[in-house]
Amino acid sequence: MVIMDGKEVSEALKRKITAEVDKMVSAGRRRPKLVAVLVGDDGASQVYVGHKERACGQVGFDSEVVRMPASTTADELNAVIDRLNADDSVDGFIVQLPLPGHLSEEAVIERISPLKDVDGFHPETTGRMISGLDAYLPATPAGILELIKYYNIETAGKHCVVIGRSNIVGRPIANLLSMKGYPGDCTVTLCHSRTADLKEIVRGADIVIAALGKAHFVTADMIKEGAVVIDVGITRIADPSKKSGFRIAGDVDYDNVAPKCSYITPVPGGVGPMTIACLMQNTLKAAERRTKR
Amino acid sequence: MVIMDGKEVSEALKRKITAEVDKMVSAGRRRPKLVAVLVGDDGASQVYVGHKERACGQVGFDSEVVRMPASTTADELNAVIDRLNADDSVDGFIVQLPLPGHLSEEAVIERISPLKDVDGFHPETTGRMISGLDAYLPATPAGILELIKYYNIETAGKHCVVIGRSNIVGRPIANLLSMKGYPGDCTVTLCHSRTADLKEIVRGADIVIAALGKAHFVTADMIKEGAVVIDVGITRIADPSKKSGFRIAGDVDYDNVAPKCSYITPVPGGVGPMTIACLMQNTLKAAERRTKR
Repeated sequence: MVIMDGKEVSEALKRKITAEVDKMVSAGRRRPKLVAVLVGDDGASQVYVGHKERACGQVGFDSEVVRMPASTTADELNAVIDRLNADDSVDGFIVQLPLPGHLSEEAVIERISPLKDVDGFHPETTGRMISGLDAYLPATPAGILELIKYYNIETAGKHCVVIGRSNIVGRPIANLLSMKGYPGDCTVTLCHSRTADLKEIVRGADIVIAALGKAHFVTADMIKEGAVVIDVGITRIADPSKKSGFRIAGDVDYDNVAPKCSYITPVPGGVGPMTIACLMQNTLKAAERRTKR
Repeated sequence: MVIMDGKEVSEALKRKITAEVDKMVSAGRRRPKLVAVLVGDDGASQVYVGHKERACGQVGFDSEVVRMPASTTADELNAVIDRLNADDSVDGFIVQLPLPGHLSEEAVIERISPLKDVDGFHPETTGRMISGLDAYLPATPAGILELIKYYNIETAGKHCVVIGRSNIVGRPIANLLSMKGYPGDCTVTLCHSRTADLKEIVRGADIVIAALGKAHFVTADMIKEGAVVIDVGITRIADPSKKSGFRIAGDVDYDNVAPKCSYITPVPGGVGPMTIACLMQNTLKAAERRTKR
């Protein structure tokens, strides 16, 4: 059993990005720049944005966080998005989700220019990806593909079962892994809350991608001997023994599942670090596109 | 066993559209208008465009066919697309595929305004559909959904196996049937040329959608007793006994499969007529949007 080490793989990816940035700077071009817009004071969002800023520093990007109060109006947020769309010094930007309830995430996502949509959530970006055209891949599915590539995991003709149909993880990774080429050419089954016989379906899988957000949902009896298991879940569980008061649990009952797997991602330290590295990769791509325009 | 009668269902749908057009005309608004652009002289394309014109007449739409020679340049075709995009008297238009080899279908599809993209092939349209937003659904998948609705076929929690991963049929219907709501909430497996154990996977399906384009590929031994079988295939097979010299075959070995099914579509007369009716539905929608703008 091999543990897919997201820290190691993401560091390798970030080193590659850093090398590209060094080349850009040596060639007299400015550094890529990523901006994060953070509305309100959600604790987890603050942490994620902090991680993204730190990653920018690591790979040599300029970065900026635009902080706005929870009471921000749609017009105020739109004005910021419009400014960032127009600002030639910004290669890509994200609006950290979730937003306060009075703001429409859908409207915000659609207002971001597809050219700067490094989160890959804009419908045009999604459509380009689904149609097999060049596109910014959403960071979590992209991170899963990078892990598969790094460990040279065979995918052609394999049966991949994706649990969870979110627009951010489950649905895009199901589509990506069923496309032609590598990593892809999988037979993909997309499961969700309405799926009957989930256990039996997962038991037939060569590759399992758990992205439903329920701690330890995937148990050892659901896993075929030798399967590849990729765990996207991040659930906070109260744990008084920790300084923070909680620990992070994945969707997979790791201790019991791992012995049956050929490859498995831990939580934390699996898909999570890959997501941030892939956001950096999209931002690099945005910067490279800008200079080609 | 119930034969899903695409002629009957498409006529019912066209009657509904006709009634809407009558209302528009009574209210003093002009009729919806669909334009088809036909480049070159592909025989099947001529036939399809003819069917579309006839359907427009049936439902009370204005229609027009722009015929261009096979030697048409990309610039000439682009000029026509730009004119149709700008023409306020045109609600929707299609460029009939396939195009002569020297023209890029991808570039043509992306040049059509998403507002008039009644074929539903533009990446932005695809992305809106995949993201669960209001969108023109591509006509064949939309036709399949209409058939399922007409016969009140249960979909929630059912295992649907789609054979074929084309951007026009297989991939969109796989996504649509796995979305929340009705018809949807299926557990969907997308199979294709690289799938191992295809027979076994199809044998587990409650709903089979065959969209690979190989005559009589799906045989009785692949079908579970009581399954719903929807056949999207249209293959011309030489047949000297026919005046045309050929007959049309579906992807399903109908004679042997039908007795095992709860519902099945024939070929011809199943999905085919639905596709054209759904193109009419998209055009009506485009006209209704225009008046709301």
